[in-house]
Amino acid sequence: MKTERGEVMRSNLNQETIAALATGRGGAIGVIRVSGPDAVAVADAVFVARSGKPLSEAAGYTVHFGEVVAGGSGGEGALGREVVDEVLVSVFRAPHSYTGEDAVEISCHGSSYIEARILGLLIEAGARAAEPGEFTMRAFLAGKMDLAQAEAVADLIAAGDRAQHRLAMDQMKGGVSSALAGLREELVQLAALLELELDFGEEDVAFADRGRLKELAEGIEAEIERLKATFEQGNAIREGVAVAIVGRPNAGKSTLLNALAGDERAMVSDIAGTTRDRIEERVVVGGVGFRFVDTAGLRATDDELERMGIERTRDAIRRARVVMLVMDAVEAGVCDIEAQVAELGLREDQQLCVVLNKVDVVGALDAESGSVGSSGAVLGTVSGAVSGEVQAWFSAADFPGSVFEISAKTGFGLDALRDWLVGTVDVRGFDSGAAVVSGARHFEALSRASDAVGRVLAGLRGGFSASEVCDSGSGLSSDLLAAEVREVLHHLGSITGDITSSEVLGAIFSKFCIGK
Amino acid sequence: MKTERGEVMRSNLNQETIAALATGRGGAIGVIRVSGPDAVAVADAVFVARSGKPLSEAAGYTVHFGEVVAGGSGGEGALGREVVDEVLVSVFRAPHSYTGEDAVEISCHGSSYIEARILGLLIEAGARAAEPGEFTMRAFLAGKMDLAQAEAVADLIAAGDRAQHRLAMDQMKGGVSSALAGLREELVQLAALLELELDFGEEDVAFADRGRLKELAEGIEAEIERLKATFEQGNAIREGVAVAIVGRPNAGKSTLLNALAGDERAMVSDIAGTTRDRIEERVVVGGVGFRFVDTAGLRATDDELERMGIERTRDAIRRARVVMLVMDAVEAGVCDIEAQVAELGLREDQQLCVVLNKVDVVGALDAESGSVGSSGAVLGTVSGAVSGEVQAWFSAADFPGSVFEISAKTGFGLDALRDWLVGTVDVRGFDSGAAVVSGARHFEALSRASDAVGRVLAGLRGGFSASEVCDSGSGLSSDLLAAEVREVLHHLGSITGDITSSEVLGAIFSKFCIGK
Repeated sequence: MKTERGEVMRSNLNQETIAALATGRGGAIGVIRVSGPDAVAVADAVFVARSGKPLSEAAGYTVHFGEVVAGGSGGEGALGREVVDEVLVSVFRAPHSYTGEDAVEISCHGSSYIEARILGLLIEAGARAAEPGEFTMRAFLAGKMDLAQAEAVADLIAAGDRAQHRLAMDQMKGGVSSALAGLREELVQLAALLELELDFGEEDVAFADRGRLKELAEGIEAEIERLKATFEQGNAIREGVAVAIVGRPNAGKSTLLNALAGDERAMVSDIAGTTRDRIEERVVVGGVGFRFVDTAGLRATDDELERMGIERTRDAIRRARVVMLVMDAVEAGVCDIEAQVAELGLREDQQLCVVLNKVDVVGALDAESGSVGSSGAVLGTVSGAVSGEVQAWFSAADFPGSVFEISAKTGFGLDALRDWLVGTVDVRGFDSGAAVVSGARHFEALSRASDAVGRVLAGLRGGFSASEVCDSGSGLSSDLLAAEVREVLHHLGSITGDITSSEVLGAIFSKFCIGK
Repeated sequence: MKTERGEVMRSNLNQETIAALATGRGGAIGVIRVSGPDAVAVADAVFVARSGKPLSEAAGYTVHFGEVVAGGSGGEGALGREVVDEVLVSVFRAPHSYTGEDAVEISCHGSSYIEARILGLLIEAGARAAEPGEFTMRAFLAGKMDLAQAEAVADLIAAGDRAQHRLAMDQMKGGVSSALAGLREELVQLAALLELELDFGEEDVAFADRGRLKELAEGIEAEIERLKATFEQGNAIREGVAVAIVGRPNAGKSTLLNALAGDERAMVSDIAGTTRDRIEERVVVGGVGFRFVDTAGLRATDDELERMGIERTRDAIRRARVVMLVMDAVEAGVCDIEAQVAELGLREDQQLCVVLNKVDVVGALDAESGSVGSSGAVLGTVSGAVSGEVQAWFSAADFPGSVFEISAKTGFGLDALRDWLVGTVDVRGFDSGAAVVSGARHFEALSRASDAVGRVLAGLRGGFSASEVCDSGSGLSSDLLAAEVREVLHHLGSITGDITSSEVLGAIFSKFCIGK
């Protein structure tokens, strides 16, 4: 199937040789990539090797030193000949290159003038400026990687922390693809069984064992649901885990945020939200990216302006995966805590932690005793900081979260809080090699596949009612079941690109940077 | 001499293997450079080739595909092993590399996380983070290039237009160095002649022909002066040619500036001057960078604030190489022009052009007739635009500049003005291969050499009076003359780095970017 796909699309696209700058601005060196049937010839037209030999004689995976020359690389000392740069040229021979085509990489001095000049000369010599992602698209069309892997290349380049990197690398190495390959195999088996029955359908012989069919379909459904379930986690890692910090203005929210960010190559930057004027701060904790939204507190008010602020806070809480309620440890009373927690209105899928800040004010802190357990309700490590009444309230069985005694000012208790935060994402999941779905496109395809599997199962169980062509009382007809199975195959195939359209490809690769 | 220098300093510096990211942010790929005696071993510690062979077995100028792996590249399937990226590794063997040392270039995905991760692994494996310019400094110490060439590498990377690129490339290819090499040869000859005389000095035999000595010294002086004279041009190209635009607010200065910038990949950007609040606009015209300073007009005033503006205009005019006086063609009267030109107070080394703008208002323009000669005083191409009186005034033999009839609005006459502007720099000078000095450090060294040559000549001519150890009435003694010649050699040698100190090297290479 891969070869077929490759053949069909290559005939349209890959007759042209493309070139693009692949490195960013402001470096010591720049790299210009050339790929396509004439890549070596185009490079030869602008390059004079110190050895005197043309690149056309060069083997793949070799490097050549020489000059990019404008005004003809032909005769020595030709008139109008101008040395644009001294460069290193790497040669790759099809199919042993990133794109699977003949390819050349020119490593020049990192001057935007020189880079533009060399690119201009390559285009004069017959190359065309590459579209965003066109090199990777060619790698996909040549069967070097499937679509899910190709998409992971863009994610890999955008990866800003360890978890994102891990997720993208896993997908690029085929993690998601191989999980899907297993599914497809089972589906093909299912389709074969159904079609066997179909062939004998006229003779009214229910050839395939419907029990076996049901078992297979249920296995497929479970696997698709499992993959779908990883999406929430994958997406949180990809986009950053949303954390809402709620608390009164004097509770020390900013200090806490700064303290959390201070550690590990702080990536604190203000990102103005695309919707509304919320401000997010992106902080990497334990290799995982978190998007902290600092909010105003929640309380009943008659002030119109304040009410708008509270509505924004509610919105931030609704979107958050984790909610941190920050309070002054000494001032916190049971009634107040109870009221504030209740006002959050958290859902089942959200995680809450109450952070009792400023425990340093009650006396000397022993850093060793700061390792509060992550399963909540471990209090009283700092004697006198929290009243016995409050301790009892948190210890009650029905308290739905974790609680930490910290001092954002001295750093006391922060390590435990960080561990807890990282634990909310469960990065270990995909450390063990299990596939995690992170792309919205993949999730959508899985959802559609899941719907179709549901219809197959309903048919097999005889509960399918939408069809009027049932040939027996036992559910959906075999040919309609086969059509549903084909739909599942179609949706799963669209993830890896075995079934795809040029519009989908265009949409996917246009999000890449040029030169990749 | 080069080898000596290399040996001495290498023993101190090049025992260490250095690594740095050589590409800018935001690209599809990143390149990490490693250089030094352990470059290949360090790379082997983090890299697993797809071929299974270690890089230590690889020949120079070969490329290898594989993975950068954290947690030991040793055993397959080792615990804690994490794939950081799929990469291409190029291997270079001493002395056939940029630095002259063993070197490795790792081409990875352009993610700052991955780049930092790989760099970290290389450093764990024994490399050290490179200082700015350290790769090029090692190339210099290894005798791969002299100091003037090494400095040109930084200029080449910074080159933003054709003229800057030409200048830097010429210097990198050894243009300045070879001009100096010729001088040094003559000086060594001079020194030999003097020392010959010195050996026989006791016997009071004026062995060397003082006439021949004088001739040699005069030739050297002329060549140094010639090189010094190129500095103004080289510096203008390197920094951008300063052009002051003077004229009344309604003369159309902004429109003219925009019209000039519109052409040829406009690089218009506002650069706030480091001194005062002058605003410069950098525009590339005909491959040459110009720094236009838009000024307030000049006129007598009692207003304190206005007077400050006028003082800034005077300052801009003083610093400019070219002054453009923009006037309304129809309104311009002889008295007014005369007064404005006189108020400019131009020096001999500055170039003036009067731009008579808005000729479009008097009728239809014939674009063909717009090619006004660049040697000034060619007027009347647009009938009725300029009065006969004004034409006569410009045609007078003593008018010290060029004059153009243009329409910034329609573009009429702009090509001629652009040609004239580019002509003020005389880029052809170094198109012919003559060396052009552009670095302030080089100019200073040449100036000191020039002073010393002057003293040699004065001594030879017998006019040297500062010394009290003259052994004859005919001028300076041979040993003092020889000392002066050695000083000239010293200053010229400091340009190419044959004579240098580690402080000077540090100051030069710290201006480089990291990774070069």
